[in-house]
Amino acid sequence: MLHKNFKNIDRVVYGRGSFSQLPEIIEPVRKENNRYFVYVIDSFFENKIGAKELNSKPEDLIYYIDVNPHEPTTEQVDTLRDEILSKKGLPSGVVGMGGGSIMDIAKALSLMLTNPGSSTQYQGLNLVKVPGVYHLGIPTISGTGAEVSMTAVLTGPEKKLGLKCDYTVFHQVILDPELTATVPTDWWFYTGMDTYIHCIESRYGIKNNAFSLAYGNQALELCRDVYLNEGSGKTPENDDKLMVASLMGGLSLTYSEVGVCHALSYGLSKVHGTRHCYANCIIFQHLEDIYPEGVREFKAMLEKNNISLPRGLSKTWTEKELDEMAAVSYNLPFMWHHAFGDNYREIATPDYIKSLFRRL
Amino acid sequence: MLHKNFKNIDRVVYGRGSFSQLPEIIEPVRKENNRYFVYVIDSFFENKIGAKELNSKPEDLIYYIDVNPHEPTTEQVDTLRDEILSKKGLPSGVVGMGGGSIMDIAKALSLMLTNPGSSTQYQGLNLVKVPGVYHLGIPTISGTGAEVSMTAVLTGPEKKLGLKCDYTVFHQVILDPELTATVPTDWWFYTGMDTYIHCIESRYGIKNNAFSLAYGNQALELCRDVYLNEGSGKTPENDDKLMVASLMGGLSLTYSEVGVCHALSYGLSKVHGTRHCYANCIIFQHLEDIYPEGVREFKAMLEKNNISLPRGLSKTWTEKELDEMAAVSYNLPFMWHHAFGDNYREIATPDYIKSLFRRL
Repeated sequence: MLHKNFKNIDRVVYGRGSFSQLPEIIEPVRKENNRYFVYVIDSFFENKIGAKELNSKPEDLIYYIDVNPHEPTTEQVDTLRDEILSKKGLPSGVVGMGGGSIMDIAKALSLMLTNPGSSTQYQGLNLVKVPGVYHLGIPTISGTGAEVSMTAVLTGPEKKLGLKCDYTVFHQVILDPELTATVPTDWWFYTGMDTYIHCIESRYGIKNNAFSLAYGNQALELCRDVYLNEGSGKTPENDDKLMVASLMGGLSLTYSEVGVCHALSYGLSKVHGTRHCYANCIIFQHLEDIYPEGVREFKAMLEKNNISLPRGLSKTWTEKELDEMAAVSYNLPFMWHHAFGDNYREIATPDYIKSLFRRL
Repeated sequence: MLHKNFKNIDRVVYGRGSFSQLPEIIEPVRKENNRYFVYVIDSFFENKIGAKELNSKPEDLIYYIDVNPHEPTTEQVDTLRDEILSKKGLPSGVVGMGGGSIMDIAKALSLMLTNPGSSTQYQGLNLVKVPGVYHLGIPTISGTGAEVSMTAVLTGPEKKLGLKCDYTVFHQVILDPELTATVPTDWWFYTGMDTYIHCIESRYGIKNNAFSLAYGNQALELCRDVYLNEGSGKTPENDDKLMVASLMGGLSLTYSEVGVCHALSYGLSKVHGTRHCYANCIIFQHLEDIYPEGVREFKAMLEKNNISLPRGLSKTWTEKELDEMAAVSYNLPFMWHHAFGDNYREIATPDYIKSLFRRL
């Protein structure tokens, strides 16, 4: 196909308090399958958002998941799927409420509920053949773009790679900026910078077009309002803006690609378990030769928001670890191709990639 | 419902040459209903785009429609629907290819093929109860936002008003900027200004939010690139941008509303048959007291592109005509409410609206 025919989120509701519309929105879906819903919620909300706040039904299943120990794994999704199916059979739908990891788990779970075998079999493009159950995303932190992307990124025994296909896209997203009010400042910064880096990488590469650039440019403007311009900082008005920026940054990637920072980030996360957005920030500060304007502005945002990032990490890494990280990153040719053009293989060699990791 | 839960276009393909993807895209839909497609195409393309270029099937029906005599009417859609159903029964889908009028006809036709009676019965919000057939839009001129809106605006015997509901939204849009290459300069300006005016009206009113503002601001930036900034003018690069601006301007209205210019425009079109985008331009130049910055910039764009608009039109209008126009405009309270706030009834009286028409 000449140009990507992209699948939109079917329905989007945006606005303060829109979380309260959840029961009304899923009510018509409750007649599907075994007539119950699964909620997958970040354990941060365990004593804050329960059956009462969700207005859930007694037959529903609520899982609180701690995403802190590691990025979502294929094993985690498979186990959850098996448990749900053996308990109550196929649900009407899955509601995911949390950050990018929870969005990824909810998307992957909805697919794995209807597709046999392990999720490791489906890591890649268009490998999923059966539509999943209805799935709805409620982001509680802005920036990853996972609420809009057609990929559910999982770390497997062999690779960190997304289940990427049209079926992955949410049927519904509820964008309620009020839910992001309690995000700690450091994570507010790291996740927002995921959007910022998406847009910089999307823009500086060979694959973008006017659609990608328009979405990316607006998301960058919003990031500047949130992190750099007069009036910046963690305010309700900026929470509103950052939630839109995250969506637009994600849409910017529809006709473009992420680049060097994300390729390295996957390697760092896979080997050291570093959380995605934080890994991006740790890496991006060292890429001034590749993204000069973006890294300069990123550093200004770091300073403005009084955020310090670790350096010198690579001093403690073994050659074996560096080789492993480089292998994961090298195995993402579409990112290197976008960033460096058709001759990317000559530039992004394993040795070069290792040299980039040594900067950290 | 607290916040609108908006229906997206299911799928969007954007890019130069994407028109060629049409047959591949509709192929899977051809198994629906009576297994044929209806094409509704602007008569401008009558000797340019036929069965060969469309790669259509012998069983398909192609209609070329001249949109110049008037804006789309309820009668026109009803007649076309009756003819199609009596000829071949329910089609698999409808493809609309042209400007805003053709988009409106295609959307309304797809709904009226499955909903009984006259389309006049469905002018308003959520009056359509049965989903229409699959419908696909291919805009060949950018600006109206009709490719993304949930409304199919028709002029009936009594009112100019849209069939507005979730079912109206296209299942698929093909955005191929190459198709806009042959648009005459004056209409390129008028229709692009429809987007510009959408964004100004969306922004200056009580109903917007961060989502609307972000989409509107980016569409305004793109309009400036196309009509005002260095590099402006009708170039391929700007055709690319204007097609994105049109989409974003339409999405800006998701959580906002048009305002004074559109309210007046509906009255002018209903009584004098003036085409929508041109009517907007004729009116907007006189609204500097209501939209000061927007009108100043609009005038700069007029000058930069050497476009002159008629003035003094109202001199030849009768009181009866002015009353009729004002009545149509007055009957759009949501636009006046957005523009003037909760006290709009005290401001936007029939006399005041007549006084605005007298400026023309």
